[in-house]
Amino acid sequence: MLNKNRVTTLLFAVLILAGSIPAMAKSEVKDRLEPSSWWIGFKNPVVQLMAYSKDIAHLRPQVDYKGVSIERITAVENPNYLFIDLLIDEDAKPGKVELNFSDGKKIRKTMVLELNEREKGSALRQGFTSADAVYLLMPDRFANGNPENDNIAGMREEADREAPYGRHGGDLQGIMNHLDYIADMGFTAIWLNPVLENDQPESSYHGYATTNYYKIDARYGTNEEYRQLVEKANEKGLKVIKDMIFNHCGSKHWWMEDLPSDDWINYNSFVRSNYRLSTISDPNASKADLKLATEGWFDTSMPDLNLRNDLMLNYLIQNSIWWIEYAGLQGIRQDTYPYPDKHGMAEWNKRINLEYPNFNIVGEAWIGEAAKLCYWQKDFPNSDGFNSHLKSIMDFPLMDAMHVAFNEKGGGWSDGLMRLYDVLANDHLYPDINNLMVFPENHDVGRIYNVLNNDLRSMKMVTAFFATVRGIPQWYYGTELLMDGNGYEGHAHIRHDFPGGWEGDEVNAFTREGRTDDQNEILDYLTKILNYRKNSEAIHHGKTLHFVPENNVYVYFRYLEDQAVMVLLNNSSDEDRIVNGERFDEILSKYSEGKDIITGKAVAFDNFEVPAKSAKIIELN
Amino acid sequence: MLNKNRVTTLLFAVLILAGSIPAMAKSEVKDRLEPSSWWIGFKNPVVQLMAYSKDIAHLRPQVDYKGVSIERITAVENPNYLFIDLLIDEDAKPGKVELNFSDGKKIRKTMVLELNEREKGSALRQGFTSADAVYLLMPDRFANGNPENDNIAGMREEADREAPYGRHGGDLQGIMNHLDYIADMGFTAIWLNPVLENDQPESSYHGYATTNYYKIDARYGTNEEYRQLVEKANEKGLKVIKDMIFNHCGSKHWWMEDLPSDDWINYNSFVRSNYRLSTISDPNASKADLKLATEGWFDTSMPDLNLRNDLMLNYLIQNSIWWIEYAGLQGIRQDTYPYPDKHGMAEWNKRINLEYPNFNIVGEAWIGEAAKLCYWQKDFPNSDGFNSHLKSIMDFPLMDAMHVAFNEKGGGWSDGLMRLYDVLANDHLYPDINNLMVFPENHDVGRIYNVLNNDLRSMKMVTAFFATVRGIPQWYYGTELLMDGNGYEGHAHIRHDFPGGWEGDEVNAFTREGRTDDQNEILDYLTKILNYRKNSEAIHHGKTLHFVPENNVYVYFRYLEDQAVMVLLNNSSDEDRIVNGERFDEILSKYSEGKDIITGKAVAFDNFEVPAKSAKIIELN
Repeated sequence: MLNKNRVTTLLFAVLILAGSIPAMAKSEVKDRLEPSSWWIGFKNPVVQLMAYSKDIAHLRPQVDYKGVSIERITAVENPNYLFIDLLIDEDAKPGKVELNFSDGKKIRKTMVLELNEREKGSALRQGFTSADAVYLLMPDRFANGNPENDNIAGMREEADREAPYGRHGGDLQGIMNHLDYIADMGFTAIWLNPVLENDQPESSYHGYATTNYYKIDARYGTNEEYRQLVEKANEKGLKVIKDMIFNHCGSKHWWMEDLPSDDWINYNSFVRSNYRLSTISDPNASKADLKLATEGWFDTSMPDLNLRNDLMLNYLIQNSIWWIEYAGLQGIRQDTYPYPDKHGMAEWNKRINLEYPNFNIVGEAWIGEAAKLCYWQKDFPNSDGFNSHLKSIMDFPLMDAMHVAFNEKGGGWSDGLMRLYDVLANDHLYPDINNLMVFPENHDVGRIYNVLNNDLRSMKMVTAFFATVRGIPQWYYGTELLMDGNGYEGHAHIRHDFPGGWEGDEVNAFTREGRTDDQNEILDYLTKILNYRKNSEAIHHGKTLHFVPENNVYVYFRYLEDQAVMVLLNNSSDEDRIVNGERFDEILSKYSEGKDIITGKAVAFDNFEVPAKSAKIIELN
Repeated sequence: MLNKNRVTTLLFAVLILAGSIPAMAKSEVKDRLEPSSWWIGFKNPVVQLMAYSKDIAHLRPQVDYKGVSIERITAVENPNYLFIDLLIDEDAKPGKVELNFSDGKKIRKTMVLELNEREKGSALRQGFTSADAVYLLMPDRFANGNPENDNIAGMREEADREAPYGRHGGDLQGIMNHLDYIADMGFTAIWLNPVLENDQPESSYHGYATTNYYKIDARYGTNEEYRQLVEKANEKGLKVIKDMIFNHCGSKHWWMEDLPSDDWINYNSFVRSNYRLSTISDPNASKADLKLATEGWFDTSMPDLNLRNDLMLNYLIQNSIWWIEYAGLQGIRQDTYPYPDKHGMAEWNKRINLEYPNFNIVGEAWIGEAAKLCYWQKDFPNSDGFNSHLKSIMDFPLMDAMHVAFNEKGGGWSDGLMRLYDVLANDHLYPDINNLMVFPENHDVGRIYNVLNNDLRSMKMVTAFFATVRGIPQWYYGTELLMDGNGYEGHAHIRHDFPGGWEGDEVNAFTREGRTDDQNEILDYLTKILNYRKNSEAIHHGKTLHFVPENNVYVYFRYLEDQAVMVLLNNSSDEDRIVNGERFDEILSKYSEGKDIITGKAVAFDNFEVPAKSAKIIELN
């Protein structure tokens, strides 16, 4: 398929073709090579380098390095870019590969690609799974470990802790300082909101407007510090999930001043997406609506990347591989998953899976209806033949249901805890049910403590539920502190600073003493359950067996052939319940005794007592 | 699989085995043979006769009829039953087949099976399709054509037109008298609520408690009259859909006094179903809940039939074939579809399809969520491997959405007409989207006129919508008269007598003069659209193209390669809208002119005017 804005050439043909490309006006061009390092030994032995330099398309690159050769050179509309496909043999040796750009007479420019050995076992690294519990945190708001990097000369936004939407100074060092806090609660993975450079003039703290795909934002730290963070986290039993955004970049991304081609981004300037994700799966959807959904911009400051451009797609795919390999990641969380071209995204998943078959990627397909969400999980038999190849999706239907369920009296046909049951009753639609990420809240929705009317008992029930339901549970920093979102008055309010993350903070919630009794109660409860969860294969990989809620009590089991965990949730606000065990005979009959995992006490099977607004988790033996 | 309550024997073994069967106490046994007639030339050449007579299992049946032989005899727990498999050769001749039951010494009893030729073309009869429009009526409440049969000596309930839940006297003759009324509106099919014998002591008017599967309730008429009704309806271009109920029979069904075996019905006595249909598709559902859902009784007076008993299943399958062949049906509507054993029901569909490949069956799977409903349509790739083989399902999600959509102001993310769009955006889940039955109301939900706050404009919009949306549209008698359900105060109120159906009725709404202006307005509107629909292949079989509603206006197209119909719905209660045509360029560009199918006037493509609370249907040419 020949792209009108691109000239793909085989080696030796480039000069002739490049000559036909008109030079664009761009006075200041800083030389770049992306990626500037790569590895030997990938299944796909080709890396495509984006070389950026003034009129570089008029030059011809040459490589003289054993085991490394140029396979293809692609020139595009803008002569300041060349895309160079390097073939790297398995037996090439690490070192610095010089790319010499010649005008036919002499070498005018040299760029260097660093070629590295891969870490041993890199390809077979284990991604996050339902055996993990994930702690999501917003780096700018968690802990300021290095006040030196709060402000960086030349970067557009300075720290201002008083500004709700300003940068507060949290950083990688801050996270490194508190890994024990996270690990001690029983978490086995962390997901950081994005940490790549966001050199935007405002609201850059959230990280979703990337301005450099190969660079950690200097206000968080360096690439090397990020690598250290992963290493330290891994040492403490915490996997690391990197938040990536392929749908859009920041308006101040360096290439926005001098795009490779017109079709590098969608639309020339801001046109808002209609956010109608159903247009992608709906056979009835109009092309016009679909285009607006997927090509419209997510926000004014976020140009929409065009993944139908295979140079762009390849750029992003390589970028993912680069970060996995460079930093030693265990997972990726992909933002706004359905918005970019779905075929490109499927290709991305396949390419990652080719290199890292045990890796995991969770996509934020923010879709509240199972009927529409199922379209997005790998291997769903879509009627249009589409396969996303996306292994994990986020269970927004469960979050939505939960936000209502615990506040309702229940007892009707479909209210109260019946909402949870009804969501799980759609599990037949998902090809890999344990690979759904489940969560009570994240950085984009109201603080769950507020949602639950600041009710500690409900918080504990929700904790028990998400720690035992099928899938990969994810918490959001501050949930364990009953953090207040002021009833959700905008994003800033659900992204408060972690108390004690900053030197001089009045309260230090990282310590027991710094926390209120209620905070310690929920944190202890969470800690108890998550640490139990760590060793429960029934919870990790088991099947679910659930019973239609009766009298506000929802009872379900997670089980394997030889082990099971029973969970009882009593959502009655004032009535303790005694649940007769006979109804559960189909599973209880296989076991002889139960143990309450919170109290450690034995539990008889005839009658289960569940106090009002509480959960019981019982290990069956 | 050997059933503990049954002894299946090959011919010649019956006497020995029958001897081991204990006689049950049952003083009065009226001889029965079901079916008592059959046909030559089915793909499945075997018919299984249920012979019922005092201690018949102690006798041995013999047949001496050319081309007819006994293939198998099955005795069951109750010796008053024998199930006799007759093999009927293709070249057998019509006539009366005598079954002579001998005690080894002499013939003690003779039963007769009438063997008939099939009508020519019977096997390839065309079932109802999305080219049809269906009129559902409740026979007891439509028209009393024969007051002579209002009360039948020996039957349990007498007519009482004053009793809301009593029998009012409507009958088959009444329907026959008014077929023109139905056909003139543009309907091409009728679905009658069940007309089989319901000899129950009370509330027998609705017909859902069958007491004889082979007999039309005498208060409606005779089997022969039913056959005439189908014939007359067919002559007037109306297909006939028979309402069947396999989940349960009436408590006064004759066999309830003397069941063939313990496992003929589920549970010995009334245990209420939990009605949780998700337990059937949900991989997490408990066996206990599933059992209660499918084996619990639908209501006190309705014993739940056990379709896992293959004699029972075969009885029902044959009964369907019998009625299709006897009466010349074009379709079946199966009540409470998911409640009986799903594998048995799948077998039923397969057997019907084997004999009548172009026939159609619609199942009442009353499930409001596409994620759960899709499980039930033929060929949905269910993860548990189950295939219902049910061709058509009812679109309850669309009905639910519609009941809310037109009453809402709209303009939010998912309210107003967006609800309709969102339901249609799940169409990717259905293997055969045009085989969904779509309907604004039926005999079990609130009268749509009340639901729409007695608003004529909304009624017209709903009419336009269901006549043009994908699927098989179904109306309910009285919708065309703005019939009042008194705000739904129980079933009786949504099943009022059709005014004019009874001699002496003050008002005769079958005539223009008998109707109010509003009634004539909606009826004329419906008539216009349905008669247009009759010839619109784009509406019958076309694809859908719809656009995200904007400003309360929902625009969609039904289209084929060379024809299309455009529909605009403006649900703003007070603002006329002018919709710019540019947005629809992807389809409008293929056509040069439009015609408003109501006014017949030409419509330009630049701007479409849609007055407040109205619909426009435009044929594109």
